[in-house]
Amino acid sequence: MPAGELRYPSPPENSTTEISAANDEEWLWSQIKAEARRDAESEPALASYLYSTILSHSSLERSLSFHLGNKLCSSTLLSTLLYDLFLNTFASDPALRAATVSDLRAARVRDPACVSYSHCLLNYKGFLACQAHRVAHKLWTQLRRPLALALHSRISDVFAVDIHPAARIGKGILFDHATGVVIGETAVIGNNVSILHHVTLGGTGKACGDRHPKIGDGVLIGAGATILGNVKIGEDAKIGAGSVVLIDVPPRTTAVGNPARLVGGKEKPTTNEECPGESMDHTSFISEWSDYII
Amino acid sequence: MPAGELRYPSPPENSTTEISAANDEEWLWSQIKAEARRDAESEPALASYLYSTILSHSSLERSLSFHLGNKLCSSTLLSTLLYDLFLNTFASDPALRAATVSDLRAARVRDPACVSYSHCLLNYKGFLACQAHRVAHKLWTQLRRPLALALHSRISDVFAVDIHPAARIGKGILFDHATGVVIGETAVIGNNVSILHHVTLGGTGKACGDRHPKIGDGVLIGAGATILGNVKIGEDAKIGAGSVVLIDVPPRTTAVGNPARLVGGKEKPTTNEECPGESMDHTSFISEWSDYII
Amino acid sequence: MPAGELRYPSPPENSTTEISAANDEEWLWSQIKAEARRDAESEPALASYLYSTILSHSSLERSLSFHLGNKLCSSTLLSTLLYDLFLNTFASDPALRAATVSDLRAARVRDPACVSYSHCLLNYKGFLACQAHRVAHKLWTQLRRPLALALHSRISDVFAVDIHPAARIGKGILFDHATGVVIGETAVIGNNVSILHHVTLGGTGKACGDRHPKIGDGVLIGAGATILGNVKIGEDAKIGAGSVVLIDVPPRTTAVGNPARLVGGKEKPTTNEECPGESMDHTSFISEWSDYII
Amino acid sequence: MPAGELRYPSPPENSTTEISAANDEEWLWSQIKAEARRDAESEPALASYLYSTILSHSSLERSLSFHLGNKLCSSTLLSTLLYDLFLNTFASDPALRAATVSDLRAARVRDPACVSYSHCLLNYKGFLACQAHRVAHKLWTQLRRPLALALHSRISDVFAVDIHPAARIGKGILFDHATGVVIGETAVIGNNVSILHHVTLGGTGKACGDRHPKIGDGVLIGAGATILGNVKIGEDAKIGAGSVVLIDVPPRTTAVGNPARLVGGKEKPTTNEECPGESMDHTSFISEWSDYII
Amino acid sequence: MPAGELRYPSPPENSTTEISAANDEEWLWSQIKAEARRDAESEPALASYLYSTILSHSSLERSLSFHLGNKLCSSTLLSTLLYDLFLNTFASDPALRAATVSDLRAARVRDPACVSYSHCLLNYKGFLACQAHRVAHKLWTQLRRPLALALHSRISDVFAVDIHPAARIGKGILFDHATGVVIGETAVIGNNVSILHHVTLGGTGKACGDRHPKIGDGVLIGAGATILGNVKIGEDAKIGAGSVVLIDVPPRTTAVGNPARLVGGKEKPTTNEECPGESMDHTSFISEWSDYII
Amino acid sequence: MPAGELRYPSPPENSTTEISAANDEEWLWSQIKAEARRDAESEPALASYLYSTILSHSSLERSLSFHLGNKLCSSTLLSTLLYDLFLNTFASDPALRAATVSDLRAARVRDPACVSYSHCLLNYKGFLACQAHRVAHKLWTQLRRPLALALHSRISDVFAVDIHPAARIGKGILFDHATGVVIGETAVIGNNVSILHHVTLGGTGKACGDRHPKIGDGVLIGAGATILGNVKIGEDAKIGAGSVVLIDVPPRTTAVGNPARLVGGKEKPTTNEECPGESMDHTSFISEWSDYII
Repeated sequence: MPAGELRYPSPPENSTTEISAANDEEWLWSQIKAEARRDAESEPALASYLYSTILSHSSLERSLSFHLGNKLCSSTLLSTLLYDLFLNTFASDPALRAATVSDLRAARVRDPACVSYSHCLLNYKGFLACQAHRVAHKLWTQLRRPLALALHSRISDVFAVDIHPAARIGKGILFDHATGVVIGETAVIGNNVSILHHVTLGGTGKACGDRHPKIGDGVLIGAGATILGNVKIGEDAKIGAGSVVLIDVPPRTTAVGNPARLVGGKEKPTTNEECPGESMDHTSFISEWSDYII
Repeated sequence: MPAGELRYPSPPENSTTEISAANDEEWLWSQIKAEARRDAESEPALASYLYSTILSHSSLERSLSFHLGNKLCSSTLLSTLLYDLFLNTFASDPALRAATVSDLRAARVRDPACVSYSHCLLNYKGFLACQAHRVAHKLWTQLRRPLALALHSRISDVFAVDIHPAARIGKGILFDHATGVVIGETAVIGNNVSILHHVTLGGTGKACGDRHPKIGDGVLIGAGATILGNVKIGEDAKIGAGSVVLIDVPPRTTAVGNPARLVGGKEKPTTNEECPGESMDHTSFISEWSDYII
Repeated sequence: MPAGELRYPSPPENSTTEISAANDEEWLWSQIKAEARRDAESEPALASYLYSTILSHSSLERSLSFHLGNKLCSSTLLSTLLYDLFLNTFASDPALRAATVSDLRAARVRDPACVSYSHCLLNYKGFLACQAHRVAHKLWTQLRRPLALALHSRISDVFAVDIHPAARIGKGILFDHATGVVIGETAVIGNNVSILHHVTLGGTGKACGDRHPKIGDGVLIGAGATILGNVKIGEDAKIGAGSVVLIDVPPRTTAVGNPARLVGGKEKPTTNEECPGESMDHTSFISEWSDYII
Repeated sequence: MPAGELRYPSPPENSTTEISAANDEEWLWSQIKAEARRDAESEPALASYLYSTILSHSSLERSLSFHLGNKLCSSTLLSTLLYDLFLNTFASDPALRAATVSDLRAARVRDPACVSYSHCLLNYKGFLACQAHRVAHKLWTQLRRPLALALHSRISDVFAVDIHPAARIGKGILFDHATGVVIGETAVIGNNVSILHHVTLGGTGKACGDRHPKIGDGVLIGAGATILGNVKIGEDAKIGAGSVVLIDVPPRTTAVGNPARLVGGKEKPTTNEECPGESMDHTSFISEWSDYII
Repeated sequence: MPAGELRYPSPPENSTTEISAANDEEWLWSQIKAEARRDAESEPALASYLYSTILSHSSLERSLSFHLGNKLCSSTLLSTLLYDLFLNTFASDPALRAATVSDLRAARVRDPACVSYSHCLLNYKGFLACQAHRVAHKLWTQLRRPLALALHSRISDVFAVDIHPAARIGKGILFDHATGVVIGETAVIGNNVSILHHVTLGGTGKACGDRHPKIGDGVLIGAGATILGNVKIGEDAKIGAGSVVLIDVPPRTTAVGNPARLVGGKEKPTTNEECPGESMDHTSFISEWSDYII
Repeated sequence: MPAGELRYPSPPENSTTEISAANDEEWLWSQIKAEARRDAESEPALASYLYSTILSHSSLERSLSFHLGNKLCSSTLLSTLLYDLFLNTFASDPALRAATVSDLRAARVRDPACVSYSHCLLNYKGFLACQAHRVAHKLWTQLRRPLALALHSRISDVFAVDIHPAARIGKGILFDHATGVVIGETAVIGNNVSILHHVTLGGTGKACGDRHPKIGDGVLIGAGATILGNVKIGEDAKIGAGSVVLIDVPPRTTAVGNPARLVGGKEKPTTNEECPGESMDHTSFISEWSDYII
């Protein structure tokens, strides 16, 4: 690790290649419709659901806005209001739509249980919470904070996924299972990150400023891991399930345990493969770890 | 432990003694109605709820189907559709109904906070999620997978309990508190198992095949335990709260810690009482453990 | 630590200074309305929500009862019934209202992400679950147990916060993020306590009697901590994130790890500042801890 | 008819005998509860409905407020808001409650199809529309006109009964079947009046002032009758079904036909029995009429 | 009129030819599904609705029960309860199902605006109110009167069609437009009758006994007609729009006006074609009538 | 009738003066917002409703689409779907929006009970049914007939106003009270027409072709009037309440009675003022009529 410069989360950018992003989106949408059509044919009991959520819509953004509006509404925040809000936000921001496409691909490629794009679009609470968060985040940056916080609250109630609207999240993100994820106000997450359920990116409680973790590109964070404070998790690092991390983790290394230590030792930690956030290898480091500990 | 043969999860079987199962069900149902009637009399504010969910129904399966249909419905998956689905599935499969009866008994016997059968039937999200899962699992085995996955998604949203519809679960199961439980696609759970909240039976992320834990009969898994990979937790084993288990655990032994180790040591682990899944003793091993660690 | 007498959770008492409590409540309510009015003006999309939940009401208790009734209702437990129940309970018990005020202050003071009182009132699931629990607890003490348990179940479904209605909770409580909190039947929590998400105050599973933790005043419990059995966590103690605590923790000390040990050692544990439950310092003990462990 | 002085609608007054009115209300409420209890026992499918609407409430006004709140709510006018509004209005005005009692008695005594008080309370849209109107009227007199009109609109949508909130209505009123009733802004209806469905008390369209009919005590208006303009229908008069009335009708006479004429002739019209509004005799004048016309 | 024997409403009978009725039902159901499939293909925005109401169901009775359950439910009478009630009633009574089939045919044949069977099934409030009435009537005859009356009330609220559950109605009935129809307790309607909107079959108000009209087979009743008292409208008679009928009308004659008189005169009334209830000729008698009156 | 050329309903045209129409719309919208703001301030209980329906929207078409979507939705036709449909239709057709503006003005000017534009927009079922009909009519002309009919059905259920989607309706229309209005498939209504409740523009039942009334500009039709068959009601004609009209009515004349005759006699009928549809004079012809009849 010559430099240790972390490739920190790239700021969300407007796609410079909007045309190809649009093509991507179109291709994916046609896939999703084909999947939904096939499912509707084979399962009449689900056809109504598939038509209302997917097949009656003319674009991915409309389908997603409809689905989120109906999932997140309450008796005091009507589905029509939320639908409008989602649709207007997605429609006006190609970068948001490109992130949606990346996230769908991430789930499809990385999660063996993800049988189709439409399955993710309809059923993955992590995916849905993340898309709704992106809208809340956009509202936050537009200083529409009370609305962003109300949306945040609905996401936390409905999906048990609690991402502060100020948190910045890259694209190609997989929140797998997702229940219990908590991500604090000043957290930043890079691209191509995979985060399992019950993961906390929490604050230190001491200060009001920048107090939450920064997660580099390609990181994999195992189930139940708790990362606290303004620490840096370097690119392509891995955090073992159930770890409690209070220290920086260099790029391409693995931290495990409570409190977490680096696999291979602080001085010469073992180096990971490329992008564990994509390969999703949770356990190949078991033997090393066991050796290390016992 | 002469042989170490694990009594692995018995496959769900059609009850050979259907008559007695039916009797059982009938007896339990009459208990539940008596409880609900008593509660309705003493608490008028709850009477409407008790009549609609229990007292207006002619059988346990109808009551349960009604309750699940109303709990799991959404604006795009109507309660009438779900009610129909649950009722048809329970009505056509005595083994499902027998498992419901076993689970009700398990909660009543093992959980000191479970004051009555009706309390469990109405209020235990772990119980309700498990019954709904059994229906999703049946749909999965009938290759009605999109419907199974839609149901899975609703269970995860509503109860924060995420059990893949392919996972096989025995009977006499207690999911205590249940919030945050995640059980992966190829996991198998035996009979008379007790699982606390925030427990993960997760995959390794490496492969598409058989990649989740196998839990033997009579196992007790403490709160927040994370068991990863295709490991075997032998019959009557105990997994301590907060443990991260990446190894096989032999029958009648206890694993604790992060990473988990066997209490008494790898070579001569201490032997558990019979069926901790039923006795629910979470902490008698504390002293041993402390001795072992420090 | 000359005496080690634990200041155990003061029993909830009727405020001896009801007048000043009422003043407090009034002041806070006028703040909340001012905040909501400002937000409604700046964000028309949220104005309807703010009017229905806050601005159309004449008191904090009515607003809260309305909001809880709408959040916790289901197709079989109507919002009107719940609203009535909440309103009658809050209206008849000044101590409950005083606790609400304390909890709102606690969130506002301790949580840097809490931007306003109205934000907490509307959006904090921990706050809302706690207020609803207080009502359920009151019903429990009035021997209206089936209703208390039904309410408990709704709180657990809607907020993924599972507090047994028999549990006794002081005031000035912050449940931060709150998802996944589980608090057992005989648990007791003092005043000015802060509890992060995924915290368990669980039983031992062995007996029916007094089997859950007792948390002293001013305690701070980190995310994902699991405290099991009838143990005492002394006043102003800290429990580290992800800890598994099976032992008593003396006042003003810190316990960390799985299994948890006292920072500074069993014999001469390091002493905390005053009231970590208020200062919310999660991580200043990191260095000490790391030194201790490694 | 010595004088022809019309006993015009007595103004709604505060009951001078509030005590006996309260007794009346109590007796009626105990009757209603007894009926509902009997029905709940004989019909489990309806028990939930009966408990939620009647048996869980402590007074007639609470039951009625609950029922109206749930009937008249919409996605933008929540049941909790309406419940509050109804309850506060009924609770603060004994005259409204006395009118409710009179109307219940009127339906029970005059309508052979009205099998019980609870039947009327739960199922008679005319009764329910009238009670909701009384609340809208009270709001109107308190100059809370936008709210009165919103309520008016809900009553018209839900019950197809359109009574302007300014219209003044006495007590002991039976709106039988009620669908299609339209009563204009300056209409006044006395006590002990019976009005069948599709009846219009309409304006002339010419002016803004007092432009709707005045209906005396004890009047009976047959189905589909249309009475237009500021005309006086004298006490104990009858209006035949399908009549179009554009003229004053003296007390104790009968008007029929399109346009309506007095039975017996303008000069010496036949005299009615006492209070046709109570005896509900729609057709005994047939022969006279036929003789008159043909 | 040689005989004058009225063919009075044949009592609803159990079909002696159940097999052919079942065939009929099956054929019609396959038609309806084909129509719905075609519409779903051409109109994606409606596909979800068509799948949920028709295409996901295995029989006409299930589709109708689902649709009625969802239309007639309220916050206190859940859709699942009503669905169950409708399904059980239709499933157990072939005569009810045969009447449904006849009514669908009647609408399709007689109403030029009825473009398809599925259009009637989904959208005709007269058809839906009539089917729900048949179930209410069955409950009435089974002495489940409170439930029958609750259903009656829902039908009147939702469809503005008020048919007392005791009223007996034949088959092949068309309620065209249907809004405002009122049919009293002791009314009887034969087969192949067509009734327009705002028609009243009302009582005389004098007595408790048999006090409503008896409508023979094949009768046509025009919009807004009011028929009062226990009068007989003979088979194949016609009642003109807006008529007020207080007298018997012989078979195959036409009554018009307010009060109604026979076209052609009392002594030698003009004779109608066969079954005006089927031919729906409302106005061919205009010239005769005009001649008669003026 | 020297000229007799009926100014028949002008075909709905694309506004040639779209700019001024847009200005009109903008002015009206600003009025409506000002009214709603004033009402929200004076009546907190209604503020939530006013914000959700009016004040949170950026244009009249969005407000109207939102309101109609929420009013007309059902469990199987979601509000989001309807909102989308209304919004897209209004947004793409300036003529529809201009008609909305005309209708709002018509209600405000002609109905003394209409206190404000916002009152009409929110509460007038006749206005709302008419706007929804315009959308259904547009769908009908686009051959999206199943969707048009489904919408028709919802309008009839919710508002008890039954306008066939094929019926052509001009602008500046007031449906006053509106309950029970029925307008058939081939009916045509001109501009500046006022129609009271329970009015039927019905068919003859004989044929499938053009079989409903044609109503000229400026016509006033009184409550409960029934006009049957392909008859022409000339411009500025009046139809008396409760009339049954089966004949053409020349321009500027008045028809009354059952069956309806011309006031002043067939040969020399009395001439009306200009545009009774606007002046709304229902009854000035009473004396003439009475003279004529008696």
